[in-house]
Amino acid sequence: MLIVAERINSSRKPIFQAIEAKDGDFIRSEARAQAKAGAHYIGVNAGSFPEREAEYLCWLVEIVQEATELPICIDSPNPEAVAAAMEVLRRPTMINSVSPEEKRLAGMLPLVKKHKAKVVALCEEGASHVPSAEDKVRVAGQLIKTLTQEGIPLDDIYIDPLVYPLATDTRSALSTLNAIEAIMRSFPDVHTICAISNVSFGLPLRRLLNRTFLVAAMFHGLGATILDPTDRELMASIVAAETLLGKDEYCLKYIEAYQKGTLG
Amino acid sequence: MLIVAERINSSRKPIFQAIEAKDGDFIRSEARAQAKAGAHYIGVNAGSFPEREAEYLCWLVEIVQEATELPICIDSPNPEAVAAAMEVLRRPTMINSVSPEEKRLAGMLPLVKKHKAKVVALCEEGASHVPSAEDKVRVAGQLIKTLTQEGIPLDDIYIDPLVYPLATDTRSALSTLNAIEAIMRSFPDVHTICAISNVSFGLPLRRLLNRTFLVAAMFHGLGATILDPTDRELMASIVAAETLLGKDEYCLKYIEAYQKGTLG
Repeated sequence: MLIVAERINSSRKPIFQAIEAKDGDFIRSEARAQAKAGAHYIGVNAGSFPEREAEYLCWLVEIVQEATELPICIDSPNPEAVAAAMEVLRRPTMINSVSPEEKRLAGMLPLVKKHKAKVVALCEEGASHVPSAEDKVRVAGQLIKTLTQEGIPLDDIYIDPLVYPLATDTRSALSTLNAIEAIMRSFPDVHTICAISNVSFGLPLRRLLNRTFLVAAMFHGLGATILDPTDRELMASIVAAETLLGKDEYCLKYIEAYQKGTLG
Repeated sequence: MLIVAERINSSRKPIFQAIEAKDGDFIRSEARAQAKAGAHYIGVNAGSFPEREAEYLCWLVEIVQEATELPICIDSPNPEAVAAAMEVLRRPTMINSVSPEEKRLAGMLPLVKKHKAKVVALCEEGASHVPSAEDKVRVAGQLIKTLTQEGIPLDDIYIDPLVYPLATDTRSALSTLNAIEAIMRSFPDVHTICAISNVSFGLPLRRLLNRTFLVAAMFHGLGATILDPTDRELMASIVAAETLLGKDEYCLKYIEAYQKGTLG
């Protein structure tokens, strides 16, 4: 399970304030904490500053590069901000995200290709939600066709079927799970990714729903996820699920995680 | 999710000792604690006393009937002990279990029919383990055929595909999950049931593996489970999974469980 760490996101108040104050120490500590907790990519987002997104995104990239050797996931729908961030990046990256929306796609594709970046592709239509599993799968197929026609390898494509809050649609989790399964069946060489916490928006004990949803998603074929790796119970659920999925020969990783004290 | 409570089992030392000492208070408190925690059936097992199983099973049934109004699940492979227990039972019941083994089947079937009991049917061959999903499904089909030919309604049949310890077979969980899915696809009117804790035998932090496995099993169609309902995190996982499965309109049960304080 590939883990993209989500905490350095300007929609979170402490991060918003740290960016405003140019508090590099705080950002570095967030990057290091997420790396230590098991992240594979550190996500950075400055989208709450629409006027200065490019500038702040570059600053975040510089700071995170000082703090850890992990690759970075640039989280922005804005090709100009992403282009600027790519210029200061000194390592492989993931771009989150493209969507079928034409202008965004036209701006992002050259960046993905130039930097040989991995890319998150969202199952949206225009800027609209796609709630049903069938429509998510259809849009995923269109995205995969577009991206591979541009020469982007399947192995670099991470399809995000998106999950909407259960609180407003009781079937939202099931639709996303069914879409993950269908996408992986149709395109076994592509990856699926999901920012899981949206599923619990508006409900209490969000972490319980998040980790339960993530376990279900892993058993439907989810290969990557955007989450808070400092949530220890969530990370323990991932280790347990990978063991149950038969991906942990002799349960050695599980026992090692237990011995390190990371499971509980 | 139908929950059969497993704690009153003579293989557990405190229960063994309580049976030996005829400590009705202890058994009653175990029955009440499990009822309060959300059990639908209270399981009773006296199998660790092979010479006096029938006598002790009857005693357990009497005690549990005093303690709660829940139905009882008689856990024994021994038709004589089950027959004796059925005579003191004053309510609907579940018999756990039959297997394709001829002598056991011949002894149990008349009891199931006479008492209109629900019945757990194990995917075993003779007394042997059936590790592969394909074989579990084949045995399930034979069991369903045998039981329905005897006039037992599909709705009273609970197929247990059995899960073996991950510690000795890395694919044991997957085989069971795949079997559950295939059985429910072929026989949508039958139930599947699983005693989940066997999956974690020999590994540390068994409760983490148990609840992760149960969530996965629910998303593969498991409809009933034999477990310890006093494990609060396990029960919280069930509520969360049912909400994610779209079985909880407007998330009302989830919110109610949260407000009652049972989720964490």
